[in-house]
Amino acid sequence: MIVILRRNPDQVQLERFRQWLEERRVSIHPTVGMNQTIWGLVGDTSHLDINLIAALDVVEDVKRVQEPYKNANRKFHPADTVIPVGGTQVGGGGLTLIAGPCSVESEEQICAVAQAVRKSGATMLRGGAFKPRTSPYAFQGLRAEGIRLLSIAKKLTGLPIVTEIMDAAQLEYFDDVDVIQVGARNMQNFELLKALGELKKPVLLKRGLSATYEELLMSAEYIMAGGNEQVILCERGIRTFETYTRNTLDVSSVPVLKQLSHLPVIVDPSHASGRYQLVPSLAKAALAAGADGLEIEVHNDPAHALSDGPQSLRPEAFDRLAGQLYAISGLLLEA
Amino acid sequence: MIVILRRNPDQVQLERFRQWLEERRVSIHPTVGMNQTIWGLVGDTSHLDINLIAALDVVEDVKRVQEPYKNANRKFHPADTVIPVGGTQVGGGGLTLIAGPCSVESEEQICAVAQAVRKSGATMLRGGAFKPRTSPYAFQGLRAEGIRLLSIAKKLTGLPIVTEIMDAAQLEYFDDVDVIQVGARNMQNFELLKALGELKKPVLLKRGLSATYEELLMSAEYIMAGGNEQVILCERGIRTFETYTRNTLDVSSVPVLKQLSHLPVIVDPSHASGRYQLVPSLAKAALAAGADGLEIEVHNDPAHALSDGPQSLRPEAFDRLAGQLYAISGLLLEA
Amino acid sequence: MIVILRRNPDQVQLERFRQWLEERRVSIHPTVGMNQTIWGLVGDTSHLDINLIAALDVVEDVKRVQEPYKNANRKFHPADTVIPVGGTQVGGGGLTLIAGPCSVESEEQICAVAQAVRKSGATMLRGGAFKPRTSPYAFQGLRAEGIRLLSIAKKLTGLPIVTEIMDAAQLEYFDDVDVIQVGARNMQNFELLKALGELKKPVLLKRGLSATYEELLMSAEYIMAGGNEQVILCERGIRTFETYTRNTLDVSSVPVLKQLSHLPVIVDPSHASGRYQLVPSLAKAALAAGADGLEIEVHNDPAHALSDGPQSLRPEAFDRLAGQLYAISGLLLEA
Amino acid sequence: MIVILRRNPDQVQLERFRQWLEERRVSIHPTVGMNQTIWGLVGDTSHLDINLIAALDVVEDVKRVQEPYKNANRKFHPADTVIPVGGTQVGGGGLTLIAGPCSVESEEQICAVAQAVRKSGATMLRGGAFKPRTSPYAFQGLRAEGIRLLSIAKKLTGLPIVTEIMDAAQLEYFDDVDVIQVGARNMQNFELLKALGELKKPVLLKRGLSATYEELLMSAEYIMAGGNEQVILCERGIRTFETYTRNTLDVSSVPVLKQLSHLPVIVDPSHASGRYQLVPSLAKAALAAGADGLEIEVHNDPAHALSDGPQSLRPEAFDRLAGQLYAISGLLLEA
Repeated sequence: MIVILRRNPDQVQLERFRQWLEERRVSIHPTVGMNQTIWGLVGDTSHLDINLIAALDVVEDVKRVQEPYKNANRKFHPADTVIPVGGTQVGGGGLTLIAGPCSVESEEQICAVAQAVRKSGATMLRGGAFKPRTSPYAFQGLRAEGIRLLSIAKKLTGLPIVTEIMDAAQLEYFDDVDVIQVGARNMQNFELLKALGELKKPVLLKRGLSATYEELLMSAEYIMAGGNEQVILCERGIRTFETYTRNTLDVSSVPVLKQLSHLPVIVDPSHASGRYQLVPSLAKAALAAGADGLEIEVHNDPAHALSDGPQSLRPEAFDRLAGQLYAISGLLLEA
Repeated sequence: MIVILRRNPDQVQLERFRQWLEERRVSIHPTVGMNQTIWGLVGDTSHLDINLIAALDVVEDVKRVQEPYKNANRKFHPADTVIPVGGTQVGGGGLTLIAGPCSVESEEQICAVAQAVRKSGATMLRGGAFKPRTSPYAFQGLRAEGIRLLSIAKKLTGLPIVTEIMDAAQLEYFDDVDVIQVGARNMQNFELLKALGELKKPVLLKRGLSATYEELLMSAEYIMAGGNEQVILCERGIRTFETYTRNTLDVSSVPVLKQLSHLPVIVDPSHASGRYQLVPSLAKAALAAGADGLEIEVHNDPAHALSDGPQSLRPEAFDRLAGQLYAISGLLLEA
Repeated sequence: MIVILRRNPDQVQLERFRQWLEERRVSIHPTVGMNQTIWGLVGDTSHLDINLIAALDVVEDVKRVQEPYKNANRKFHPADTVIPVGGTQVGGGGLTLIAGPCSVESEEQICAVAQAVRKSGATMLRGGAFKPRTSPYAFQGLRAEGIRLLSIAKKLTGLPIVTEIMDAAQLEYFDDVDVIQVGARNMQNFELLKALGELKKPVLLKRGLSATYEELLMSAEYIMAGGNEQVILCERGIRTFETYTRNTLDVSSVPVLKQLSHLPVIVDPSHASGRYQLVPSLAKAALAAGADGLEIEVHNDPAHALSDGPQSLRPEAFDRLAGQLYAISGLLLEA
Repeated sequence: MIVILRRNPDQVQLERFRQWLEERRVSIHPTVGMNQTIWGLVGDTSHLDINLIAALDVVEDVKRVQEPYKNANRKFHPADTVIPVGGTQVGGGGLTLIAGPCSVESEEQICAVAQAVRKSGATMLRGGAFKPRTSPYAFQGLRAEGIRLLSIAKKLTGLPIVTEIMDAAQLEYFDDVDVIQVGARNMQNFELLKALGELKKPVLLKRGLSATYEELLMSAEYIMAGGNEQVILCERGIRTFETYTRNTLDVSSVPVLKQLSHLPVIVDPSHASGRYQLVPSLAKAALAAGADGLEIEVHNDPAHALSDGPQSLRPEAFDRLAGQLYAISGLLLEA
């Protein structure tokens, strides 16, 4: 940690700060510049509150040198984490392809979609049971019943299932769920993260709409600090000034997160764009950028055009896309 | 609701869409332009899913004409909502001044701050018991014990107390709390909002870091739809590209929210800036923009300079500021 | 254009507005809803000032139905524009690969880089002569002399040259330049755009740091309205709250711009990321998303490690990347 | 400047870097931490290119300790700059009130507005002659003729005039202009800034839509480095995810800029909001935050309701607002 002192600091306060640091077994290496004095702090600075130091009258600025996350940090765990899920795995070179409808609506629907996407090469089935909706008047999901229907589809197809949790109190329904998804709006629901840290089950953690890479990794750290190291990071678009797309897919997050962390990184192009026409382009881009996998919304209901969510592909479109994705994945492995 | 059709739409799908709308008792008023046909939809369109319509092949775009919130909407409730809290009230012309430390640390601390801020004119006491922290390694608050200490300070000073909830499971500790605060990170924790909707107790709802005005009002709507109409909106800074301040105080939110909604609007300049030096300027600005009140961090601990949070004022600075705020408030009421 | 009227509008003002529209040969199709009346405006509304209408007391909101750009609009020009440059072309299925150093520094440097990138498959040479720098104390480029050196490299290698203009007064030096680049900071330098509209030479127009798709297309429209239809759009990253990367590459811009417009779209991954380690991932992502080409910084100076710009690749890294890009491009053409 | 080295750096490259620094008379103070080595650089580091250092293989990160601007920096010029304009001045305690129409339209219009706003207490007259418009099809201003009409209004009322320049080639028309305005879109038009640096005339520099405080101050530095120290900084709203207002007024910029720099700071609430209903609230907020003045759009044309720009006040509304502003200004001076 680096502390930049104000010019002509109050000597009494400065001395008090020096003592406070020494009590915490942090030693001080001063650099006296022409206009500014800098203190390099050496020792275990991970327990120092940077905001608290920044507030001191004698301090102009503080800069952290080391990342505040440890378990999620590639520096301390150089090898890629690979997370086994059912018969498949996330990370480690293959292509994870999670597909399924936005919401579970009925047994027929979820089973039909599950069979279709498995045939196209999906490795996991997704489907919303507990649904976070901005409006209290919108459909809130089938909840526990939705998870029951997912289990039926899992038995039918063998695909592991991924579904979202909204509150720790819902955990009792998640026994048969293979990967628990934390949505963007709950990325900093710390009570929920702590509860998930006590499980031994993979967690798919979505980046919040305005979360930095560091904040995403700190939320992963919450889960990992509890003892659950099976965290899958997921980029799903951030909020920017551009409103033509629902969110802006931050494709740079893929190489950056893989550099900062050893955790696998997947991308959700459906929520990132909010427009199904863009999903194929963004899915291919994410893969080309190095993502370990994709989570894509697929919906079937050929009889009733209205049931398509705005970001869902029909099974035929997904089938075509999956073929292209496997081709790109193969090419990248060779290159 | 206005639907802009694609040029040369598929007639079968168009007919199916028309029938679907009619089944929902929505009538269609077409406007045929040179390049585009528009359908104005008349009837109760509040139950139509705009995303679903946007996804239809025959639709180029959909635009909502009416706000999706009702209980929070000034159009349907023209008079300002005034919320009584203890012997004071929020909204209705007076100045609500909520002050207190970031975290409750000890009985001595919270009681000393409470007495100091009451003397300076604060109308409520704030203090964090359950603390949302980005790092799992940071101090997480005194939790239930913190609320017990707030109650002692309330008994001592008569000031109503405001403190944050992080999960519906914590509600059992909030009996003596006068105003329950929902933090920015939980603004879209819908399960929590639903639980708060079942109470008869004021809720101070903070705007999320990247929440639009409409999303904030939709979260208020979640609480109000459950039957609890005592919602206080709170601007606390949004996330933008500018990182010199921790967040960017969106002072325009004050006149905009008061125009769109009848709910009272307060501002938290401490979290918005993250720098105590900026708090007085921002507090005065918020008040001049028409805010019903302010929530300001105040910390006392003259013996130990290190205990100041970066955005906390010392009691003397708060006292000076409170005097200026009451003067501005008086001037604005006259003008 | 759709006008949403206020409830209970002033009838005199409403009548005046109706007459004003009729004078402009715009006819009004009213839709009377339960809570709101909407006017659909039919006729040539492209000359109506939407801001002016929005300001009327009787108007609650106005929404445009049609895009405000015409020459750049795919609706009116369905076929892809292909722009010939020297012996190569931009758009139309091939891969445009523009490579070269950030700044032209010397004849040796620019000629060496030009020869290296041509060998790796670059189709054009870039190099900065007039340099926009945030600091007045930073190197401002070799200016006219830099263009002279680019011409030498062009003669040597046959590669067409691309370089940036900062002011219309510099046009006299651009005779031998094949593609004139307009930087992000000048995307709305309207006097410059007008001057470029009078030329018959391709313009590579970079998206501003906070420009929407529509604003980028309106700036293209400025050039095209003057008669110069040879505009190449270039995504180079937008400014968001995430500061780990210098800018956030908005990869969705590629499919969106190609849908809204017939103009070719290229991507600059070097400036988007500001970190050379990310350039290969982002270049592949942009191509997979459907970009017509890439502009990549390449710098050679093996003797002196310090001369690498932070976002420049060395020639060997570029050579490896170019191979991968041609492989992906081939795969996408087949698929 | 602080350089954070990578772990286990290449010793040859590290030695080369050390020599390179020493050649530039920069001395190195190393701090060897548990996980990281830091070099504090002492000496004149203002000529070191931070991006270049960041790109070195041996470097993990570089952080600047000192601001890159000097002439605009309060550290080196502690006293407030006061800029005399005609018989009035900007900065130094009084209230600068610049008012007038968006565009100059006719002699009658500009003279009527000028007389009205002078009566209400305006200290300068604004009016657009050269107009930056996003659409090539929109009215581009009366240009040179507009400045001629402003001069007539100046002679009539004695008010100094403020108007915008878009290109250095227009300078020949600005002889009679008292304050030259640089619009947000030209804040980084460096060729224009250099030309203005050679004048001895006040420049009102607007913050770009996505410019940081540091970038705004660096643009001021461009002008000041040329010898013209009369720069007035102007906040006019930044671009964020919130689109209800045209831009988001960043009211924190006022106390921050006044802390970082000695230059006067004014605010334009009209362009910040894009909605005249919000102008009074934002104007009062800006003043309460400590602004030296305001630039407000005022338009008269009582006969024709349509001529109001969306962010313009009518003279009566401005008169009421000006009274409130002078009252707040008086109160703040006392406090």
